[in-house]
Amino acid sequence: MTIETLNSGLDTIWVVLTAAMIILMEGGFALLEAGFVRHKNNVNIIMKVFVDITIGALCFYLIGFAFMYGKDAWGIIGTSGFALLGDLSHIQLSISLDTFWLFQAAFVIAVISIVSGAVAERINFRAYILYAMIMTAVIYPIAGHWVWGGGWISQLGMLDFAGSAVIHALGGFSALAAAMFIGPRKGKFTPLGTSTIALPSNIPLASVGAFLLWFGWFGFNAGSTLSGTDARIGHIAIVTMLSAASGGAATLIYTLFRYKRSDAPAVINGSLAGLVGITAGCAFVSDQAAILIGAISGLLMLFATNWLESRRIDDPVGAFPVHAVSGVWGTIALGLFATEGGLFYGGGWDLLGVQVLGLIVLCVWGFGMTWLGLSLIRLWIPVRSTEEEEEMGLDISYHGVLAAYQEHEFIHYQDHYTDFSNKTAD
Amino acid sequence: MTIETLNSGLDTIWVVLTAAMIILMEGGFALLEAGFVRHKNNVNIIMKVFVDITIGALCFYLIGFAFMYGKDAWGIIGTSGFALLGDLSHIQLSISLDTFWLFQAAFVIAVISIVSGAVAERINFRAYILYAMIMTAVIYPIAGHWVWGGGWISQLGMLDFAGSAVIHALGGFSALAAAMFIGPRKGKFTPLGTSTIALPSNIPLASVGAFLLWFGWFGFNAGSTLSGTDARIGHIAIVTMLSAASGGAATLIYTLFRYKRSDAPAVINGSLAGLVGITAGCAFVSDQAAILIGAISGLLMLFATNWLESRRIDDPVGAFPVHAVSGVWGTIALGLFATEGGLFYGGGWDLLGVQVLGLIVLCVWGFGMTWLGLSLIRLWIPVRSTEEEEEMGLDISYHGVLAAYQEHEFIHYQDHYTDFSNKTAD
Amino acid sequence: MTIETLNSGLDTIWVVLTAAMIILMEGGFALLEAGFVRHKNNVNIIMKVFVDITIGALCFYLIGFAFMYGKDAWGIIGTSGFALLGDLSHIQLSISLDTFWLFQAAFVIAVISIVSGAVAERINFRAYILYAMIMTAVIYPIAGHWVWGGGWISQLGMLDFAGSAVIHALGGFSALAAAMFIGPRKGKFTPLGTSTIALPSNIPLASVGAFLLWFGWFGFNAGSTLSGTDARIGHIAIVTMLSAASGGAATLIYTLFRYKRSDAPAVINGSLAGLVGITAGCAFVSDQAAILIGAISGLLMLFATNWLESRRIDDPVGAFPVHAVSGVWGTIALGLFATEGGLFYGGGWDLLGVQVLGLIVLCVWGFGMTWLGLSLIRLWIPVRSTEEEEEMGLDISYHGVLAAYQEHEFIHYQDHYTDFSNKTAD
Repeated sequence: MTIETLNSGLDTIWVVLTAAMIILMEGGFALLEAGFVRHKNNVNIIMKVFVDITIGALCFYLIGFAFMYGKDAWGIIGTSGFALLGDLSHIQLSISLDTFWLFQAAFVIAVISIVSGAVAERINFRAYILYAMIMTAVIYPIAGHWVWGGGWISQLGMLDFAGSAVIHALGGFSALAAAMFIGPRKGKFTPLGTSTIALPSNIPLASVGAFLLWFGWFGFNAGSTLSGTDARIGHIAIVTMLSAASGGAATLIYTLFRYKRSDAPAVINGSLAGLVGITAGCAFVSDQAAILIGAISGLLMLFATNWLESRRIDDPVGAFPVHAVSGVWGTIALGLFATEGGLFYGGGWDLLGVQVLGLIVLCVWGFGMTWLGLSLIRLWIPVRSTEEEEEMGLDISYHGVLAAYQEHEFIHYQDHYTDFSNKTAD
Repeated sequence: MTIETLNSGLDTIWVVLTAAMIILMEGGFALLEAGFVRHKNNVNIIMKVFVDITIGALCFYLIGFAFMYGKDAWGIIGTSGFALLGDLSHIQLSISLDTFWLFQAAFVIAVISIVSGAVAERINFRAYILYAMIMTAVIYPIAGHWVWGGGWISQLGMLDFAGSAVIHALGGFSALAAAMFIGPRKGKFTPLGTSTIALPSNIPLASVGAFLLWFGWFGFNAGSTLSGTDARIGHIAIVTMLSAASGGAATLIYTLFRYKRSDAPAVINGSLAGLVGITAGCAFVSDQAAILIGAISGLLMLFATNWLESRRIDDPVGAFPVHAVSGVWGTIALGLFATEGGLFYGGGWDLLGVQVLGLIVLCVWGFGMTWLGLSLIRLWIPVRSTEEEEEMGLDISYHGVLAAYQEHEFIHYQDHYTDFSNKTAD
Repeated sequence: MTIETLNSGLDTIWVVLTAAMIILMEGGFALLEAGFVRHKNNVNIIMKVFVDITIGALCFYLIGFAFMYGKDAWGIIGTSGFALLGDLSHIQLSISLDTFWLFQAAFVIAVISIVSGAVAERINFRAYILYAMIMTAVIYPIAGHWVWGGGWISQLGMLDFAGSAVIHALGGFSALAAAMFIGPRKGKFTPLGTSTIALPSNIPLASVGAFLLWFGWFGFNAGSTLSGTDARIGHIAIVTMLSAASGGAATLIYTLFRYKRSDAPAVINGSLAGLVGITAGCAFVSDQAAILIGAISGLLMLFATNWLESRRIDDPVGAFPVHAVSGVWGTIALGLFATEGGLFYGGGWDLLGVQVLGLIVLCVWGFGMTWLGLSLIRLWIPVRSTEEEEEMGLDISYHGVLAAYQEHEFIHYQDHYTDFSNKTAD
């Protein structure tokens, strides 16, 4: 047993275990979203997450990874490593390529799952499958190449440790584009211009999701070291915890005093916003800054939620407020608070400038490419559910089943797949 | 600090953490099964998993481990190490015996949990306890000895890295035997010969289960190295992911085109089938093979589900299609695709032959011993619930409580244990 | 790469991963408690856990940690390290201070979550926030200093490896004080003196919680080594498993024979009692002792539940039986069964004596300080919900939302925060 073997083993189990934790976050996304949307669309939103984790993972394997981490061409795109074949010798890590891929795959699945929440309750399921393929094969990998794959933004010096910008701002602006492209749910906004709210179908379920996400985030941030001997791991973990706590506490206290009640979905989303906000800077900012970043993330999330309502944009689970807004804030905050190079620590405007530039590029890319992608899909199939499908609920419409049955009856087996949709038990 | 101490520490935390992940899979089994069966049997199926994890673990501690890993006698059975006492000096690992036991215990609990799904909604709870004792003390450990404990099948050269055969095919054929022995649920098959289906009580709950299982499976497969410096860990993890993704994707797309809707339980079980299918070969096959193995696992699971229906065998959560069929396929696939020794890689028929032989032995053993065990139990107590118990639901019948109450009322405490079954609130 | 760097990396990832597992236990507490209480209070009990994990974590960061692990003054209290600033050079570990803090933070959150169950369904939410601050900043940290921070009890030689006494007995007696201070739920005890029972709103949800807690407990106990090369890790893990299995098995079999049905909440709590009971002694007792400790923990939990009922004390989720009683028993059991120093192993009465002394101090401290804290809070705001709030359910009263909605309707957005409580859909 040599010390090199041990080191490589340590790094490998660290990355595999944290990758598994991030993949478990898909369970978190599924339940969070299912708990927030209406009961008749619970199964559909979970199935969208299954699309992400199955078809999305395969597309990233076959195509996306090569665009992101293949041999760089002009700082724009990777060009080798489709299906992990071909020359990837420029990737020199203490972990194997397989291990590295698994961790990156966990990331791409998270991006597409962000979008799945924004289009909840009204997207055509087949169109979602196509969009998920585009996102995991093209949109995210190319942008990821620019920042993490040695591309042009990284050459300018942008910092984004675990992805406030690359994952959350990009995913969140893609979510915004998709939500706007597809339009609000039927009945969400009244003709008189007032906004209405769909009550969450199951808050305990949503909170299971939040706890799974919180757990996985330790893997997300600390695992991004890709090395078990990285001296920053402990610090990354503590600021992740503090920012999440602070985001949740801020929304809990704010809604308590402002509305006389602590709003449960807001507290859940506030904690998640704190997690998103610290994701860029977790390796670079102090504990104190993390608490501040988290609190501001939580409050911005609240204001952004209200702003979306006032703009009549329908984002059922708050993908834009949680991921885009906190992601943008977190990326900028890194330019302000980084102990090396941050504006408030005497680093001047350089880092902050490149952070803002990178953000603009990523957000425009995510928004624009999503709009383009959905436009192309619409040439072929409808992007939006029919009124009838939406009314009936996507669970019955696309999956032939309701989320829950109380009635214990047996139904005819052959009917199940043929015309079950007419038999809406419950 | 010596390098040997470090190595042993690394291996220990790797195995303890992955064992904990596998034990969490029991939560996955419990929720998956609870979500798939009817509402009136939710508590019972979870309690069966508690039987597995409590009584099952103790039986394996007291008896099973010795049969499986004790000093070999004639290649047939282990003979030392009851309650971990006695001579186990032939087990030479970098991890302690305690750590090794924990990992193995997590495995045996998985086996018995496979059977618990197939007998859902109609087994006598006391009979299940007795059967679980037989399985964890005798049936699985003896078969496990043959393949993993140095017994005769392993001497022939059978490969089964993490248990497609030993865990899943054995467990799945035991499940089949139990389902046939005990007969279908009342009303499942009509006198006219048509089959009916019980609607899942809670798909979101089932999907939580699936995500926990998927997470735990990384521990199941990669942890089976028993060493954190095993260079295969990354590869095992990636093929586990790819096969699961492929199994889920195949069922998602197949049901979408065949039935015009993506069937949610099928997608969930398709992913699990992909996980089962790769469990034998995860250390031995390529990425490409893993994708193929997973896809075929998913499709075979679908066809096997229909076949069971046509045979009028009632397996409420699909234990046989998911575990037995994919387990058999995965074990054979290893003989086909193993990069060293596989038929398609020029290894000839030797490996494939011994894989098939081993499978036949394990499946016959599981089926036969389960049938025998249940026959013996029936000499003493009924194996099947009474019609009245089944009608009322096993939750009230065996546990005096329903899965969920909406009505918030208080009832008299002393009544709770004495005659509550007459007070079916809700 | 030096061997010291590797060692430090190994310890760091071990502690960060186990800390994340313990933090996931908050999800376990939330769901366990939500599943056990009435449906109208599900959201509130989850929000209380969010108070613990957000505000509680921040209070421990700002104040509590310094009291617990700061520079010792007279064996009574720590005096440095507020907000992790100041001199903490006396803490010499192979892991960073950040990593150490994260692990300790996960512990304090568990303590306060124990209390949250006992006051379920009737505490004023604002009062709970204040109490949580006192607990995490003062009550637990000072007691923790005595036993784990170098204080006077530790100097006497008390052993409590992972906290049967410091976490569970202290938390459990605090829970008792809070439950008594605040009084029983309306309708729990009838004027005639008989006790009534509230039916659990969702046993599957509670069981998800139990599985998450069981999983996290491996982190709780084995992670308390704070070192990945500690040779005791495997042993700690196996006795944790055996005691949990034994606690669950004992209650399962006892209730089956005593009441003719295996009581589901009892089995869940029995397993947890087994986990609590082994927490002190996991590094010091044998496998055989662990099985005995677990079984007795489970049975004591059952008797204590009945005793509380007979004393007309209302502890909705069994915080006192599970945590206080098993915690006390586990701490004493360590004095009996420790292979070095235990009474039954020829160690005489010394260890047992100091265990009992320490226990008395911790239990009196927890009970008394909680009573004092709640008395002080009551000077300012009501500690108990109004009758109207309790009747309506704390979810609507404090959070303006129900746990679950089936009706899919949209309601006016601006109404949501202003007068939604009058619109009790469902």
